[in-house]
Amino acid sequence: MTQHRSRYGPHNPDETYVGHALSEQLVDLGEVRMNYATVGDDSSPALLLIPGQTESWWGYEAAMPRLAEHFQAFAVDLRGQGRSTRTPGRYTLDNMGNDLVRFIDAVIRRPTYVSGLSSGGVLSAWLSAYAKPGQVVAALYEDPPLFASEVRPAVGPGIRQCIGPIFDLWSSYLGDQWSIGAWDAMRESAPDRLPEWLKGIPIPEEPPQNLKEYDPEWGRSFWTGTVAASCDHERMLRSVKVPVLLTHHLRITNDATGFLFGAMSDQQAQRAQDLLRTAGVSVEYRSFPDVGHSMHGDKPDLYVDTLLAWVQSLDV
Amino acid sequence: MTQHRSRYGPHNPDETYVGHALSEQLVDLGEVRMNYATVGDDSSPALLLIPGQTESWWGYEAAMPRLAEHFQAFAVDLRGQGRSTRTPGRYTLDNMGNDLVRFIDAVIRRPTYVSGLSSGGVLSAWLSAYAKPGQVVAALYEDPPLFASEVRPAVGPGIRQCIGPIFDLWSSYLGDQWSIGAWDAMRESAPDRLPEWLKGIPIPEEPPQNLKEYDPEWGRSFWTGTVAASCDHERMLRSVKVPVLLTHHLRITNDATGFLFGAMSDQQAQRAQDLLRTAGVSVEYRSFPDVGHSMHGDKPDLYVDTLLAWVQSLDV
Repeated sequence: MTQHRSRYGPHNPDETYVGHALSEQLVDLGEVRMNYATVGDDSSPALLLIPGQTESWWGYEAAMPRLAEHFQAFAVDLRGQGRSTRTPGRYTLDNMGNDLVRFIDAVIRRPTYVSGLSSGGVLSAWLSAYAKPGQVVAALYEDPPLFASEVRPAVGPGIRQCIGPIFDLWSSYLGDQWSIGAWDAMRESAPDRLPEWLKGIPIPEEPPQNLKEYDPEWGRSFWTGTVAASCDHERMLRSVKVPVLLTHHLRITNDATGFLFGAMSDQQAQRAQDLLRTAGVSVEYRSFPDVGHSMHGDKPDLYVDTLLAWVQSLDV
Repeated sequence: MTQHRSRYGPHNPDETYVGHALSEQLVDLGEVRMNYATVGDDSSPALLLIPGQTESWWGYEAAMPRLAEHFQAFAVDLRGQGRSTRTPGRYTLDNMGNDLVRFIDAVIRRPTYVSGLSSGGVLSAWLSAYAKPGQVVAALYEDPPLFASEVRPAVGPGIRQCIGPIFDLWSSYLGDQWSIGAWDAMRESAPDRLPEWLKGIPIPEEPPQNLKEYDPEWGRSFWTGTVAASCDHERMLRSVKVPVLLTHHLRITNDATGFLFGAMSDQQAQRAQDLLRTAGVSVEYRSFPDVGHSMHGDKPDLYVDTLLAWVQSLDV
């Protein structure tokens, strides 16, 4: 039985991280040191890549060679991900979004396309609403849990009615910053603790690489709602100022339970588009019901083609 | 009987604001347009002045002529104060602090001394902990409610045991963005609603100028705790990176009730100093038990003398 308590995180890099073909760098943003990898030439348009929950920058590794032909791309670890700083008690969309504002200022230093997956897609929305004037050219939201990652959503199912109980399980047994690390107890308890519709998700014998690089307090912040407590999604979407591409991947709503398997229901995607149009920005919506949550990870060519077609369609 | 509903705020400047000798300017920071006034020469050190709750930039008006001899000083209205933008649902220390980070970047553009009163003193602490590298030279916390403005303080009385019930009264009867404006009902209800120790605070017949310029949602965010929900004061003070001057003004603790009249108890001021010393920064503590909450407003010469003596003592 492997001991996992306090084993993973930037304090213990040898046990936590694996090598990658691209080199990584850290930049001091004040509260956090942010890790990132970059490809492409600074004569190309800048592109910021924002990972999802339980992902690190290298989730974009498969897409980066092709992105490098068209962009100077920067893939980051958010606070609490990968090699970036852990910030107990301070995982909020506003803090993560302002880290990215500082990253654009300190590292990219010019107007930037932003693209984020899942929670990173919500942060892409955050940047499109709340970044400094001129920082963001346009924003891709890749299968973002708009509304569905809130505890009190304006429309459709909330965090408890989709993936939330998994976040609760992880954060309860693994603890903030892996301070508990009870992986085996978590595996044993999962069938009793999870609702019917989540029992089937397999939990491997050992923590996979992506979870080693993840601060389970992220999950607690989503389960309890602190992550978005002062960042209502409806208000955020009403405040967006730049063109948006919203992609929407595999989603299945269980008619008996209302449980949503996927990032957003169709109602939620529609409401997001309505709010963006009310905000007066150009919105392209593309449905990919056969594509898994991470298009950039599972189908990197489709991701790059989709991104390029949209960028070329924009009048910027 | 004057109607106050939805009467005050940037949407209705003629009813809300009064003229000042110094000119005011607005800067677009992305989410908010921030109002400010400035004095002094850009060859002098930069000084950012942060008002307290229910104060606007002009709370510093009496001190600014003398400050202009030694600094280029910038006095701002925070979000929800004065002529700056109202941001419903988004009044947090982290958002207000990051507004100031952006203000330093956009307007001041060089290393800055920061000085804030009361809640603005907590934001001065926030900047000294969480600003971008190199932005803040040193920080004056003028009678800040460290711990005492939290709902779950690490030490001493919390918001409910000091001024909090007044914030609750205001925000309940006046409403977010003055959306209720029931001033007369508030006056009538105050004696029944407030605890014994706050009943004596007089409420004038008409809203005073400073309250017209104040979004009562600020008060709700303190009463409910959302303002600091992801910004624990203890953790913030442990993270401070620059020299600090902490001033501590009139405070009286009622031995029978534990009620604190003032911004901080002596225990809380001591704990703040201990945490700052643990953080490894230079701390000067000055007690002024005979000075009211706003030294810069009530005794501007003492404020300027105190600030100057401290700045001259720093090895920067």
